[in-house]
Amino acid sequence: MADLSPDDLEFLEHAARLSLEGCENRAGGPFGAVIVKDGAVIAEGWNQVTSGNDPTAHAEVVAIRNACAALETFDLSGATIYSSCEPCPMCLGAVYWARLDRLIYANTRDQAAAIGFDDAVIYDEIPKPPSGRTLPTLQVDNQTAQEAFALWDRMADKVAY
Amino acid sequence: MADLSPDDLEFLEHAARLSLEGCENRAGGPFGAVIVKDGAVIAEGWNQVTSGNDPTAHAEVVAIRNACAALETFDLSGATIYSSCEPCPMCLGAVYWARLDRLIYANTRDQAAAIGFDDAVIYDEIPKPPSGRTLPTLQVDNQTAQEAFALWDRMADKVAY
Repeated sequence: MADLSPDDLEFLEHAARLSLEGCENRAGGPFGAVIVKDGAVIAEGWNQVTSGNDPTAHAEVVAIRNACAALETFDLSGATIYSSCEPCPMCLGAVYWARLDRLIYANTRDQAAAIGFDDAVIYDEIPKPPSGRTLPTLQVDNQTAQEAFALWDRMADKVAY
Repeated sequence: MADLSPDDLEFLEHAARLSLEGCENRAGGPFGAVIVKDGAVIAEGWNQVTSGNDPTAHAEVVAIRNACAALETFDLSGATIYSSCEPCPMCLGAVYWARLDRLIYANTRDQAAAIGFDDAVIYDEIPKPPSGRTLPTLQVDNQTAQEAFALWDRMADKVAY
């Protein structure tokens, strides 16, 4: 668990305001996020799925991409993400890959489901074995794909992440 | 389950070649993806996390963003994604949000884990209750965030997705 400070409440309110403004401006769904490092907001994000024709343009993904561009890094260790809503699995995965230190959010996946978003459905799907999901899925061995993994494994100058 | 055709094997090989080329070119991890609709490749993607300073630039996310840009839509219904590796939870979430019809992949999450990638770790984290994850997480009610949801719920002209 994380401890909560007055600053945390202020940054969460910042994310929430972005969710409201994005919705008012018809940018997309009512979701906002900010990323904070060393006490300062380094990036904002709000949902732009429909206005940007990008189903990955959720608030958290947009904020992470903006933060990484601003800091010129793919590693946000030491930073906190504030989101107006519990991140969906896509966004939660992005939070892990970005190596963020903390996550603070307001509305829940069930509140999102109640206004028509599929966050809860996708949370139910992800843990299932691939063959048991609603998404028709097949695994097929491929030699070229295996060669790519072998190449990575033996590369001396790779940039790991 | 999905049925497999000779075309499927060809498109999977295309994705696998992208994974090998991306690795050889030091674009990022050894992962590639293509999106196919009506028998034609409409978008390619390969991992660009380290070269692009973007932890969300996994092959599948890049391919989805490229496909949506090409077709000017946020909805890829009717299309199939081929990936050189089992999508991580971030990418699998993106596949659901993009409304793709099918997923065909080669290497597995365990093979990815064996060469140093955290896909399997993140798959283990996602289903946990937020307070039980390795990522310090807090939920805090926020009135502005609730107002944004209420606004969305009553908007007559919203573009749902």
